[in-house]
Amino acid sequence: MRADGRETFQLRPIHIETNYLKHPEGSVLITVGDTKVICNASIEDRVPPFMRGSGKGWITAEYSMLPRATEQRNIRESSKGKVTGRTMEIQRLIGRALRAVVDLEQIGEKTVWIDCDVIQADGGTRTASITGAFVAMSLALNSLYETKAIKKFPITDFLAATSVGILQEIGVVLDLNYAEDSSAQVDMNVVMTGKGEFVELQGTGEEATFSVQELQQLLEAAQKGIKELFDIQKQALGDISLKIEGNVNENK
Amino acid sequence: MRADGRETFQLRPIHIETNYLKHPEGSVLITVGDTKVICNASIEDRVPPFMRGSGKGWITAEYSMLPRATEQRNIRESSKGKVTGRTMEIQRLIGRALRAVVDLEQIGEKTVWIDCDVIQADGGTRTASITGAFVAMSLALNSLYETKAIKKFPITDFLAATSVGILQEIGVVLDLNYAEDSSAQVDMNVVMTGKGEFVELQGTGEEATFSVQELQQLLEAAQKGIKELFDIQKQALGDISLKIEGNVNENK
Amino acid sequence: MRADGRETFQLRPIHIETNYLKHPEGSVLITVGDTKVICNASIEDRVPPFMRGSGKGWITAEYSMLPRATEQRNIRESSKGKVTGRTMEIQRLIGRALRAVVDLEQIGEKTVWIDCDVIQADGGTRTASITGAFVAMSLALNSLYETKAIKKFPITDFLAATSVGILQEIGVVLDLNYAEDSSAQVDMNVVMTGKGEFVELQGTGEEATFSVQELQQLLEAAQKGIKELFDIQKQALGDISLKIEGNVNENK
Amino acid sequence: MRADGRETFQLRPIHIETNYLKHPEGSVLITVGDTKVICNASIEDRVPPFMRGSGKGWITAEYSMLPRATEQRNIRESSKGKVTGRTMEIQRLIGRALRAVVDLEQIGEKTVWIDCDVIQADGGTRTASITGAFVAMSLALNSLYETKAIKKFPITDFLAATSVGILQEIGVVLDLNYAEDSSAQVDMNVVMTGKGEFVELQGTGEEATFSVQELQQLLEAAQKGIKELFDIQKQALGDISLKIEGNVNENK
Amino acid sequence: MRADGRETFQLRPIHIETNYLKHPEGSVLITVGDTKVICNASIEDRVPPFMRGSGKGWITAEYSMLPRATEQRNIRESSKGKVTGRTMEIQRLIGRALRAVVDLEQIGEKTVWIDCDVIQADGGTRTASITGAFVAMSLALNSLYETKAIKKFPITDFLAATSVGILQEIGVVLDLNYAEDSSAQVDMNVVMTGKGEFVELQGTGEEATFSVQELQQLLEAAQKGIKELFDIQKQALGDISLKIEGNVNENK
Amino acid sequence: MRADGRETFQLRPIHIETNYLKHPEGSVLITVGDTKVICNASIEDRVPPFMRGSGKGWITAEYSMLPRATEQRNIRESSKGKVTGRTMEIQRLIGRALRAVVDLEQIGEKTVWIDCDVIQADGGTRTASITGAFVAMSLALNSLYETKAIKKFPITDFLAATSVGILQEIGVVLDLNYAEDSSAQVDMNVVMTGKGEFVELQGTGEEATFSVQELQQLLEAAQKGIKELFDIQKQALGDISLKIEGNVNENK
Repeated sequence: MRADGRETFQLRPIHIETNYLKHPEGSVLITVGDTKVICNASIEDRVPPFMRGSGKGWITAEYSMLPRATEQRNIRESSKGKVTGRTMEIQRLIGRALRAVVDLEQIGEKTVWIDCDVIQADGGTRTASITGAFVAMSLALNSLYETKAIKKFPITDFLAATSVGILQEIGVVLDLNYAEDSSAQVDMNVVMTGKGEFVELQGTGEEATFSVQELQQLLEAAQKGIKELFDIQKQALGDISLKIEGNVNENK
Repeated sequence: MRADGRETFQLRPIHIETNYLKHPEGSVLITVGDTKVICNASIEDRVPPFMRGSGKGWITAEYSMLPRATEQRNIRESSKGKVTGRTMEIQRLIGRALRAVVDLEQIGEKTVWIDCDVIQADGGTRTASITGAFVAMSLALNSLYETKAIKKFPITDFLAATSVGILQEIGVVLDLNYAEDSSAQVDMNVVMTGKGEFVELQGTGEEATFSVQELQQLLEAAQKGIKELFDIQKQALGDISLKIEGNVNENK
Repeated sequence: MRADGRETFQLRPIHIETNYLKHPEGSVLITVGDTKVICNASIEDRVPPFMRGSGKGWITAEYSMLPRATEQRNIRESSKGKVTGRTMEIQRLIGRALRAVVDLEQIGEKTVWIDCDVIQADGGTRTASITGAFVAMSLALNSLYETKAIKKFPITDFLAATSVGILQEIGVVLDLNYAEDSSAQVDMNVVMTGKGEFVELQGTGEEATFSVQELQQLLEAAQKGIKELFDIQKQALGDISLKIEGNVNENK
Repeated sequence: MRADGRETFQLRPIHIETNYLKHPEGSVLITVGDTKVICNASIEDRVPPFMRGSGKGWITAEYSMLPRATEQRNIRESSKGKVTGRTMEIQRLIGRALRAVVDLEQIGEKTVWIDCDVIQADGGTRTASITGAFVAMSLALNSLYETKAIKKFPITDFLAATSVGILQEIGVVLDLNYAEDSSAQVDMNVVMTGKGEFVELQGTGEEATFSVQELQQLLEAAQKGIKELFDIQKQALGDISLKIEGNVNENK
Repeated sequence: MRADGRETFQLRPIHIETNYLKHPEGSVLITVGDTKVICNASIEDRVPPFMRGSGKGWITAEYSMLPRATEQRNIRESSKGKVTGRTMEIQRLIGRALRAVVDLEQIGEKTVWIDCDVIQADGGTRTASITGAFVAMSLALNSLYETKAIKKFPITDFLAATSVGILQEIGVVLDLNYAEDSSAQVDMNVVMTGKGEFVELQGTGEEATFSVQELQQLLEAAQKGIKELFDIQKQALGDISLKIEGNVNENK
Repeated sequence: MRADGRETFQLRPIHIETNYLKHPEGSVLITVGDTKVICNASIEDRVPPFMRGSGKGWITAEYSMLPRATEQRNIRESSKGKVTGRTMEIQRLIGRALRAVVDLEQIGEKTVWIDCDVIQADGGTRTASITGAFVAMSLALNSLYETKAIKKFPITDFLAATSVGILQEIGVVLDLNYAEDSSAQVDMNVVMTGKGEFVELQGTGEEATFSVQELQQLLEAAQKGIKELFDIQKQALGDISLKIEGNVNENK
């Protein structure tokens, strides 16, 4: 049993509140235990320079934390005048992951801006961001589709993410909170599609390593957790999830 | 009557939710119509260099908006690598205002960091920030007082802020929303204490001016609104407001 | 009597030298006691992006101090790589104030750049900047008018600024020098037009407050001082002041 | 067969030149096909602030490319005034990987700075950097050990890295060059220890995904390649490799 | 004859006004034709980190231009957030030149900050800065000496600078104004001591070259001009120049 | 005799390896004693804004050092977020020098980017950069000429650079290494053309001065050294040097 009473392969309580803020085309508050992230999706009618003339769209993400999302107050990146390496890594990860399940040709030369703002952090902020951002993006692209700004619903599959890790005394666990994450020997973020394929796999041993057998167990835990996340996303998306399932079946 | 149905001297619906986030010493979500600001207060056990050795504390504020708090997405200041003039002006205003009602000697060489993060903007974000930050700061300083980290409750009076302005067709109005603010000829932010004194008065005619008579009316509207804000703050603060009132009476 | 021998409502000796430097379209050295500011106005044949296509002009200001304008040497903002909040606040104030007395449609898609460079500081640098910048701007716009680059003289009224404040032992005083400003309980900057209307009113109690009665007195002192400033501006502008008066009468 | 004539599981020609530059404590030029990276290791007699007083050492890495290491010239990060997200991600990866095979307590409060400067790029620069940096670091730590600045040789195992990926027409391949990398559906970087354990696993499908079976094949290819890299490292390190093997045996 | 009527080897009218501003320890306005530079010298009671513990002082310079010192308005370096290469080159030159005639051991661990702010530019701003800064520095160091903060007057010789160049139609000329400088084939800045030795010699052919014979003529012109500058400096310094001459004689 | 056994007027061993890297249009590794610089020339098909529409080309240079090119590791300029004054000075010098021997009209609206990256530093890096960059630029412009992208070979003369200086105990010496440079009283960089004319002359006495006689000797040493550098450049350039000589003869 883990310190917070969970089983090794048990997620924390998760909730996704849709239409959280009024201005964004898609807006979600995702709660994963004590981790809370506002995920907003905005549509911009142009693409970055390297995509111009391609006829294809683009999806890009930004990630930030409130200074007091954490136990100790952090200095704002705007005050420091630069974005940390950690933030950049997470932003690139979120954008890349979402692009794997969108048919960019269908959305034309538009950019979907994803903003993930962590208002309270207790571990797993990057995977919560991906799971929530997928819902916010689905809402925004659905509004494009419903207003006939795009012809075909462009999301090709579900997408969710979780973290797994190895704790010295317990072994492999699913969905680490901050205390667990800080003491884990191995930390792995897994992003998967509804079809059960990997989009991203980032396993790291900080001053430690992991074997092929341990990798096997980590992936099993992740697969179990991500399946549960898909159910929560479907509930949040309601009818929109049918359009995604339609696309999945069509591509089989 | 105003576009949203309010009387000229009527505030929007206002709500203050205390203990909004779990990490900060004081945390508040203030809602003023569609404007929503998370106000967090953090205690740091040291003061900035220019205050060291003074035996006195310091209060400083930071202000930011989520990129999609607004109708159009704004570029993050961390991405731009610099804080705009508008942000700096607001940060300086919030800090200065709060310092006017705190006995800095009582808190010793500690800094109270105020973070005002606007998650949804519809006008009046700086005055909502001040009104909410006062409550967050009170919670944080009260916890210092209750844990006997400081000997005397250091807040000397209530503090709240609102905006007033002049609309071409209506005249003087209280608590402008974004649409009103954009078309106002004169815009004035007023910060007042429970005793009815001014802490800050910032009146601006953008390509317009105002007379002494208009100033009179603007101040009346502000006074009425701020009195109502004090009631909402007292409700949110519960027993803590008695400690503030105690200090007010003592200083008479 | 004040430390420098002045009456409470007495300005320091003020002088405005026109055509101070040879390159700018308008150039002024304004001296207010020991405060000396070079105010230059430059005409650029385009407007910032947000104004393009509007057919209207723009007025923007920059403010800076020589490192040794002050008692202690300050680090250059160019060395720090960023502009302080104080500088941004002042720059925005100067630009906003000047725009209130110019008919931007008359100047077409041109920008008037105002540069206020403080070479010696002894309090009141922002109000001296506004008072001097008005004259520099008038010279520059007059040269546009005289060369028939614009059809109508575009300045609609006079504009000047001063500071007032409350000193513990003396009460309300006009035009504070640095020593007075440092010890003042309340500090207020007032920008007014020739017609006697307010353009900006910025009153601040740093760790103090002020009552409605005190506000009344502060405004009286400011009005008296600003009237005297108008006389000094008119003397400096010579015949150009007649064109401004013509516009004032026309708009009555 | 691949475009450059290699088998699917075949590395490019690899060479490690030790003592490449004269100033660094450890210096290596690693050549992987047409990719060339100078890896320098420098010893500094202090640790970053967050490690002070811990009695332990630290290893940190920086990565850069000459502007014309690539087919098209890139703007220098020093000219841009900021480091890109890609660079930060790579720097963090290199440092983290190296720390997994060093007993930081043995080196005391010293920092090993790793500088990987790509002078010619043809794919796989981050994995070449890790493989070369391990050798440079070994040389630097060996000189500390030989001069008795540290008591025990602190490297606990070998470490090398390679990339694997999935090409549309060929399937899983080892050690992708730039042309292959640009068209790969899946790209994975694998860092392993001499014992055959994983230190880092970063698999990414850019607008694509991969199955559990494909993951299996990717890891096999990576394991084969990394074994060959260990032989090349041992040849480059000569007798120093015996000290590493001694530590490996001791920890069994 | 030159466009402004001067002989080829004739300086422009030069004037040095001492004690120009009230705060700096040494303050000068130098006028060289239409070029005007405020040169201030400030004393700081510590040295930069690389000099600490040396017992010696340091002299460092900063250089800037008002945005409208020039025919066309320039963007402020503080707005750009960085200092240009040209500014850095000039700052380093001024500091290096002044250090050549000061006995840094005599001033102890103090820094002399030289600020050269060009308020009007018409060519030769860097040489005017050096010539004026020498006087400002002499005033500041003399006040240290007169208040017995240092025991020996530390300036060992006079120092002045001018520019020379080659104009296509006229040949070698002394003290180029902006129009001449823009069209010159060769441009040379020369800094010399009272003894007639070189401190700096920076000759540049922009898309042109110069022969040994031409170098000879350029140096002759410079020597003539600098001798005249010494007379103007001596007049400005009054009795202080006797202390410098005393040191020159002592070192013979 | 000098510390490294050289005569006073003797260069260090010098070698220029052409076609050092595969991507750049011109690429050279120049070795001057222990100083090693990679000089790359890249052709870009446009010119900076200030040259557009002129029909002429541009040549610009960037200079950098590996952090561990030096005895002590230096912080990367990309980490610092800004380029030092020294780097800017060198970059400007290299670009200016090369432009003196190229007929910019012949190359049309193209930019030649010169990148000088010092991988090992032992004094004289800026002069080695110029000498090597001339060869890299010649290779790049020759490839433009051979592919008929330009009609006339545009290099009008040879160009090389060396340093000379005055050592306390030895007097004037040629081609200073780092140890000599650090202790030299006078340091001079000389850039000359094949015709024997000066392009740049930068002599500096750091806390010292030099006489007209010493200048004479310094120039003699430089002329001798640069003649030898021309021979090494010609050998490296092979037949391309004949095209340069052809242009030299044509312009006589």
